[in-house]
Amino acid sequence: MSDSICFRPIGIIRSCHVKAEETPIQPAYAKGCLGRAEIFPEFAQGLKDLDGYSHIYLIYHLHQAGPGKLIARPFLQDVEHGIFSTRSPWRPNPIGLSVVELVKVDGNNLQFDGADILDGTPLLDIKPYSEKFDHIHTTRNGWQDEVDEETALKRGQRGYRGGGTP
Amino acid sequence: MSDSICFRPIGIIRSCHVKAEETPIQPAYAKGCLGRAEIFPEFAQGLKDLDGYSHIYLIYHLHQAGPGKLIARPFLQDVEHGIFSTRSPWRPNPIGLSVVELVKVDGNNLQFDGADILDGTPLLDIKPYSEKFDHIHTTRNGWQDEVDEETALKRGQRGYRGGGTP
Repeated sequence: MSDSICFRPIGIIRSCHVKAEETPIQPAYAKGCLGRAEIFPEFAQGLKDLDGYSHIYLIYHLHQAGPGKLIARPFLQDVEHGIFSTRSPWRPNPIGLSVVELVKVDGNNLQFDGADILDGTPLLDIKPYSEKFDHIHTTRNGWQDEVDEETALKRGQRGYRGGGTP
Repeated sequence: MSDSICFRPIGIIRSCHVKAEETPIQPAYAKGCLGRAEIFPEFAQGLKDLDGYSHIYLIYHLHQAGPGKLIARPFLQDVEHGIFSTRSPWRPNPIGLSVVELVKVDGNNLQFDGADILDGTPLLDIKPYSEKFDHIHTTRNGWQDEVDEETALKRGQRGYRGGGTP
């Protein structure tokens, strides 16, 4: 692959989700579902002080996503959109992003709430979610503004019905 | 590199920032600074409907970052922290994440406000920033809670003093 940019996993995400088609699509639809990020020992030192944050970004490789598409029908609506206006995993670069609630840091393991990630997913990066940088007041939320809460919750949870640990 | 996960740029980010040490560290400290994401023509179709969103995530390769560290002194504070509790670019995987305001979509070019990214940076992914998924009420913001606004603004802007286009 020309111009390819390569990364190496810093850990593995563990969750109760083993089937892509039953995995909730976002942490907002996975409340109460616990996940664990097992950071490889050689990166554990980098977790220092992370426990001061209530929320973190997990950036990961959507390792079970199919080939990248440019137009996709998102989970929440039966209308086709450009892939970059959706969070669909079938992207040109299958990079996943979740804002999860950090429950506990235990050695090189992070326990978090809002697990919307398949078990065994390679973790690429962790960043603190910061009120200063990331808590943005949007004025428009694209096609998502057309989806009512009830529909979003029903479709967003997929197979998830509450609870769960890795 | 074993287990390496490789991606290919979907475009290039243009900004007025040509020196890493003068580039603002976050969009919050780059207000009024316009940037442009030039999406390669083969991915342009994926931008459909993105213009409905006021804010987007840009995920990019921090191509001028130095070797990854596990402990770093962030720009905003003279105290060492674990790299994953900071947004420092010197990370094990140099992946950058910015929430920027989408000003205009013009063909395969995105104009955005809050450019905190070096000119020439390879873009890996674009995701809509969604009120439903990303507007999180944090309860704790780690060591950042110790940094007062005036200090954060002064240090966060670095060489930036307002305005600017690519």
